Amino acid sequence: MKYKIFIFNFLLIFITSVSTVVSQGNDSLILRSIFSEALAHPAAYGNLEYLCRKIGGRICGTDKADQAVYWAKNVLDKMKPDTVYLQPVMVSHWERGEESCRILSEKNGQRNLHVCAIGGSVSAPAGKISSEVVEVQSFDQLKAMGRRGVEGKIVFFNRPADPTSINTFQAYGGAVDQRSRGANHAGWYGAAAVIVRSATTAHDDFPHTGILHYADTVKAIPAMSVSTNDADTLSKWLKSDTGLKLEMRLTTKSFPERQSYNVIGEIRGSVNPSHIIVIGGHLDSWDNGEGAHDDGAGVVQSIEVLRIFKALNIKPKNTIRAVVYMDEECNQRGGKVYGSIAAARDSTGVEKHLLAIEADRGGTTPAGFSIDGNDRQIQKIKEWKSLFFPYGLWFIEQGGSGVDIRSLKTLGIPLVGLVTDSQRYFDYHHSANDTFDKINVRELELGAAAMTALVWMWDQSPEQ
Amino acid sequence: MKYKIFIFNFLLIFITSVSTVVSQGNDSLILRSIFSEALAHPAAYGNLEYLCRKIGGRICGTDKADQAVYWAKNVLDKMKPDTVYLQPVMVSHWERGEESCRILSEKNGQRNLHVCAIGGSVSAPAGKISSEVVEVQSFDQLKAMGRRGVEGKIVFFNRPADPTSINTFQAYGGAVDQRSRGANHAGWYGAAAVIVRSATTAHDDFPHTGILHYADTVKAIPAMSVSTNDADTLSKWLKSDTGLKLEMRLTTKSFPERQSYNVIGEIRGSVNPSHIIVIGGHLDSWDNGEGAHDDGAGVVQSIEVLRIFKALNIKPKNTIRAVVYMDEECNQRGGKVYGSIAAARDSTGVEKHLLAIEADRGGTTPAGFSIDGNDRQIQKIKEWKSLFFPYGLWFIEQGGSGVDIRSLKTLGIPLVGLVTDSQRYFDYHHSANDTFDKINVRELELGAAAMTALVWMWDQSPEQ
Repeated sequence: MKYKIFIFNFLLIFITSVSTVVSQGNDSLILRSIFSEALAHPAAYGNLEYLCRKIGGRICGTDKADQAVYWAKNVLDKMKPDTVYLQPVMVSHWERGEESCRILSEKNGQRNLHVCAIGGSVSAPAGKISSEVVEVQSFDQLKAMGRRGVEGKIVFFNRPADPTSINTFQAYGGAVDQRSRGANHAGWYGAAAVIVRSATTAHDDFPHTGILHYADTVKAIPAMSVSTNDADTLSKWLKSDTGLKLEMRLTTKSFPERQSYNVIGEIRGSVNPSHIIVIGGHLDSWDNGEGAHDDGAGVVQSIEVLRIFKALNIKPKNTIRAVVYMDEECNQRGGKVYGSIAAARDSTGVEKHLLAIEADRGGTTPAGFSIDGNDRQIQKIKEWKSLFFPYGLWFIEQGGSGVDIRSLKTLGIPLVGLVTDSQRYFDYHHSANDTFDKINVRELELGAAAMTALVWMWDQSPEQ
Repeated sequence: MKYKIFIFNFLLIFITSVSTVVSQGNDSLILRSIFSEALAHPAAYGNLEYLCRKIGGRICGTDKADQAVYWAKNVLDKMKPDTVYLQPVMVSHWERGEESCRILSEKNGQRNLHVCAIGGSVSAPAGKISSEVVEVQSFDQLKAMGRRGVEGKIVFFNRPADPTSINTFQAYGGAVDQRSRGANHAGWYGAAAVIVRSATTAHDDFPHTGILHYADTVKAIPAMSVSTNDADTLSKWLKSDTGLKLEMRLTTKSFPERQSYNVIGEIRGSVNPSHIIVIGGHLDSWDNGEGAHDDGAGVVQSIEVLRIFKALNIKPKNTIRAVVYMDEECNQRGGKVYGSIAAARDSTGVEKHLLAIEADRGGTTPAGFSIDGNDRQIQKIKEWKSLFFPYGLWFIEQGGSGVDIRSLKTLGIPLVGLVTDSQRYFDYHHSANDTFDKINVRELELGAAAMTALVWMWDQSPEQ
């Protein structure tokens, strides 16, 4: 009897192994065809060229953002998936105007700096501020100076992004509080304005913008970013002339909220049409560049996933939904709207979300996936490591996903960020340097293929 | 007794584990300091800027190559390692002259193509050839046409590099025979000249050069490369006008061999000065670009390894020798000379080589190491995987190393190629597009740090 059980168990293991091998063999053929399709017919690249060069920078609430919405809908319509629609989202509307800054030093003379308004900044009173400057590296240092050292002055936040971080997102994360919260901290002590070193490890003349949010309890003061080269210059000049002044010109405008949209396209599931795998990037971008890496890349890659499914005539079991979100850069309204609708649909059984992926780390060579999920979900994706490895997808780890899909966390599904090579990303991020010519067609398409591969694997997976 | 043995064994295992952990902990601290040094003080980047912008393209035998030799020696001298010297190498000397090509079609008109001479090509007779064209994708196709179909014509080799290869070196490898051997195959059937599609997956207007070697048994005929865009145009025009002609102008010059040098700098080993770890890249480059990725990057990265050792005040046990090789692109004389001297020294016990690393795959983000060695050697490096992983070094596999260190194979030591992200490399390789502005400082420095990390680990390793 024992012997029979042994044989039975052996056969069971054998059959399971063989079926795993056969299934992995099939998976591996499909993955190969996905990557070949993306590399041989790089449609995402052509789409990105149009979005960047014909439309360009597109901060939410602007006409450019509207153009991008209709462009995205049009691209999806032409692809003829099963559904294409717009999901209404109310967004803020802020525009930059005049922005300049120069050093006036009795000792060293005058010098214009490369600056730009930080997104959401108020105008300078009557468009202009001229004041002495205090340089700090941290909020603690500012606190130590107190109102007496700061009041009426321009606070210069000059803590660099740490170049020794291997992952540049970490370097950025260690510096970006100056941009996002510096105006509040300085405003608390009565500063007239802030000027902030750009949150990048690059040394160049590009100022990098990004959002700030004023606290309700503090007077809103004007905020500018300055290029890293010019931050170095200003710091150097301050050392030899502590009394130098900055003359800022800054006019920005805030308008009433405006109607905008997430753009959604989907291939309906052949087995479970109400079960949803969501992929996406964000359509809005900062206005100073072309929004190529941030995040035109994620937009066209998400659309490319649908194209690849159609081109290879793969009928997914579950619905594959590409969502290009509006307003990631300012208030994440697109992600929040999608998230609340998804939560309502899931809770009433109209839909069941399975997995969400966001591509918003630049269109460079994909390295793998960062997964915000439980151990079982992470383990499941890790089991596919050997299938992904031949495509250079070596990084499959627990970690953050993407800003727009964060609100899907309550659904208990795995949230995945497409991880790409981060070394060059912050050279471009939020600056006039984020242009189409910085995109490599192969790197971009490999990212789209990586997303498609993960979607396909998850779609096939029996246990969800 | 058994109990005591058990306890003893347990303690032994415990102590070994602890010492491994302690040692790996120390290794991990050193690796961290190596990467921080490279990223915080990117000297390699500044060196590369000088080499590319002040000297530029430097094919062996030319004055530019001489300038590069003295520049490299000077950079090493200033760093004050223990030894800096030149190792004499005789090299060929070839220079391009006039190079142009246009289509003359009675049906479609005239069109100039983006072309360049393939390295080593002979001149066209009286500098000019005008002839009909036959397009082929393979040598077999040429063979099928035979002398009757080919004689007196210009053979157009138009097999594309396969865009679906994930590693672009594989795509290149599948196309480059047309450049290196096309003239011989076509010459065999009496062709007047060849024009070859550039060996790249990029679609642009840059012709890519590279070396060819004429067979002794075949008449040498002129050979040109054409950009991929223009190869597509030529192919299209040929479809509607099979009788079109190409008018080539090509004047090249070959000069007598000339004295040149490998440039060598070393930090002497504190324990075993005669034991050598060799690192290197090649100093010569094609003349049409600036030789930034190929292989200025490898040169400055190798020099950077010495700088990092010195900056961190690490005294290696064995001698760390940086060799920047002359003439990788044409006849690999530098590598051969170094190899034969190394073999002689090792065989007489004057030196003992331990490991050789070459960086010659572009200055993009490093992925890891490709190792040409025996199982034990490969296994040893694989055991350090978890130490390398935090730096994005995920690829440690058996494979090819580098052209210049190939001749060290007879020494039985592991030969290692620094593997870098290959996606963009062949956009630049051997073209006018291989310029300094295509280099990212962080990617370049991470490559130097990766080499330094491997050198340090091997230097520390007790078993060699």
